[in-house]
Amino acid sequence: MAKPIHIALDAMGGDAGAEMVLPGAEIALLRHPGIRFLIFGQEKIVLPLLEKYPRLRDASTFFHCEVAVSMDAKPSQALRQGRWRSSMWRAIEAVKNGEADVAVSAGNTGALMAMSTFCLRTMANIDRPAIAAIWPTARGESVVLDVGATIGADAQQLIDFAILGGAMARALFGVEKPTVGLLNIGVEEVKGLEEVRTAGRIMREAPFRSFSYAGFVEGDDLGKGTVDVVVTEGFAGNIALKTAEGTAKQIAGYLRAAMNRSLFSRLGYLLARGAFNQLREKLDPRKVNGGVFLGLNGVVIKSHGGTDAEGLASAIALAHDMVRNELLQKISQDLVHYHRGRFPVSAETPEGDE
Amino acid sequence: MAKPIHIALDAMGGDAGAEMVLPGAEIALLRHPGIRFLIFGQEKIVLPLLEKYPRLRDASTFFHCEVAVSMDAKPSQALRQGRWRSSMWRAIEAVKNGEADVAVSAGNTGALMAMSTFCLRTMANIDRPAIAAIWPTARGESVVLDVGATIGADAQQLIDFAILGGAMARALFGVEKPTVGLLNIGVEEVKGLEEVRTAGRIMREAPFRSFSYAGFVEGDDLGKGTVDVVVTEGFAGNIALKTAEGTAKQIAGYLRAAMNRSLFSRLGYLLARGAFNQLREKLDPRKVNGGVFLGLNGVVIKSHGGTDAEGLASAIALAHDMVRNELLQKISQDLVHYHRGRFPVSAETPEGDE
Repeated sequence: MAKPIHIALDAMGGDAGAEMVLPGAEIALLRHPGIRFLIFGQEKIVLPLLEKYPRLRDASTFFHCEVAVSMDAKPSQALRQGRWRSSMWRAIEAVKNGEADVAVSAGNTGALMAMSTFCLRTMANIDRPAIAAIWPTARGESVVLDVGATIGADAQQLIDFAILGGAMARALFGVEKPTVGLLNIGVEEVKGLEEVRTAGRIMREAPFRSFSYAGFVEGDDLGKGTVDVVVTEGFAGNIALKTAEGTAKQIAGYLRAAMNRSLFSRLGYLLARGAFNQLREKLDPRKVNGGVFLGLNGVVIKSHGGTDAEGLASAIALAHDMVRNELLQKISQDLVHYHRGRFPVSAETPEGDE
Repeated sequence: MAKPIHIALDAMGGDAGAEMVLPGAEIALLRHPGIRFLIFGQEKIVLPLLEKYPRLRDASTFFHCEVAVSMDAKPSQALRQGRWRSSMWRAIEAVKNGEADVAVSAGNTGALMAMSTFCLRTMANIDRPAIAAIWPTARGESVVLDVGATIGADAQQLIDFAILGGAMARALFGVEKPTVGLLNIGVEEVKGLEEVRTAGRIMREAPFRSFSYAGFVEGDDLGKGTVDVVVTEGFAGNIALKTAEGTAKQIAGYLRAAMNRSLFSRLGYLLARGAFNQLREKLDPRKVNGGVFLGLNGVVIKSHGGTDAEGLASAIALAHDMVRNELLQKISQDLVHYHRGRFPVSAETPEGDE
């Protein structure tokens, strides 16, 4: 039997807090009975709720934490008030101490990223962490990063993101050598952002073992699923992600209005209900809930704050899969291989050092 | 009767060239009989085609041009080979010389922007031009700029874009004081790009006569139509635009697949066909075809290169409306007012000069 996977859970995160988190964990546990939870939260809120889920209770260890980080706290404020003693911090710390394999929180993104970076630190040779989103495409799913951890990225950071995203795609999709594209405007070599052009030139010239570089992609390639991994800096990535979410909602609204338009359309809707349910499932944001923090010495999964129990269960399932498929080990191997591969190149230059 | 509007038309632009452009102009002419066209193109291609559209022929003056700028030419190459003698250049030049009120081309975007900037020059106090797109929203339409003219923008350039976009919204929507938002990640003051934060602070503190500043907006506000004008730099703006287009296509694909799923869904589709037609019309990219080049001493409209005659007719209708509603005059007035309003501020500082 497989070794149990230990997931540190911030019970106080999300708009609905523990009342959403605990039933979400229960759903995830039914699907993956091998999970063991470390639940962090305020005892007077969490413990009575936990009594309602005896199966979850029996698979969990509870840790009382005085502080719950509020959804609108600024990252610096959250760090000041919540370090060492908030449910968010302690879930991350459990990963650092090796008590948990991964942490999951639906809390404040900025605070979670600040605490994760402070507690876990970035990996050797990685400057800055990234948030990777799983993007539903016409062909399946892609990994898109960074979707908002940091604004701007130089060429080296974009290459780091390509390595991180490539490893995640291998863990997630089971492909041996995922394709990686750089998000740019215009696919011609002359076009686009300078950092992106430089990163593209380097990746084209120095092939990577862990992924295959596929060139520039544009905004409309995201939905097409042209590549397995799309790399961009956090400002454009976050805007792309939210624009796609907004467009999906907008079209769903148009569709609802159109179907309510007349007796015929309502009848048509009833007849085609199975098809509409299938479509709704395809567009259900809860199915692909979970941003993965990459580049840190430990994996942290951020669930959407406004999600429900079903959505949180998806984020927990993602955490489970990332541990089961050894995301962190894959990243480490790829980084070691990349940086080992670089030495001969610099050794050829007169000033090269080993 | 209203004065005729003179539109300079690049007959060689677009993937399908004159065979798409001329019927497009014919459709536009039926809708706006007051248009007079100046058609620029290669005579052996354009003249035989023009014979098929006698109404258009009678409303047009034709000018032979040796060169057609290719859709994949680099901007510098297009300028070198096509200046003075390409259909694209001469259509723009007709605006400069006052022979036309506006130019329309479905040609190569980079070349069109390079030639427009070279020929028309930026307006006084405007550093860089922008491309403004009309974005269909749940509430109607918004103006979004820049969607790809230039990468990056400092705070002053973002403010310039706000003035340009505000004037366009007044010309397009007939509102007296459109709302303007700055595209950012996170709506808290502490978040996001530094240039965007600075522009936001300045716009909040110094109210503008021609628009009302509504703060930061995020990617999902684009589809909601939260504000009349969304201001961003060209890299993120282009990615947002193409991501939304890609997402709309992706969902339309899902919908088609779902409706073909079973006999019931196909029957339902037939019954609700009116509703689906309405939806298709809502999502038809040809209805809102046309990017407006703003900040130059003349108006140039870029049609999507892959559009058909119906789409080109929309771009021409947009050109017509922008002239009829005095876009350029509105921009000039707003710029004069803004820069006049700025003098007292600098005069208060010790080093202030008038």
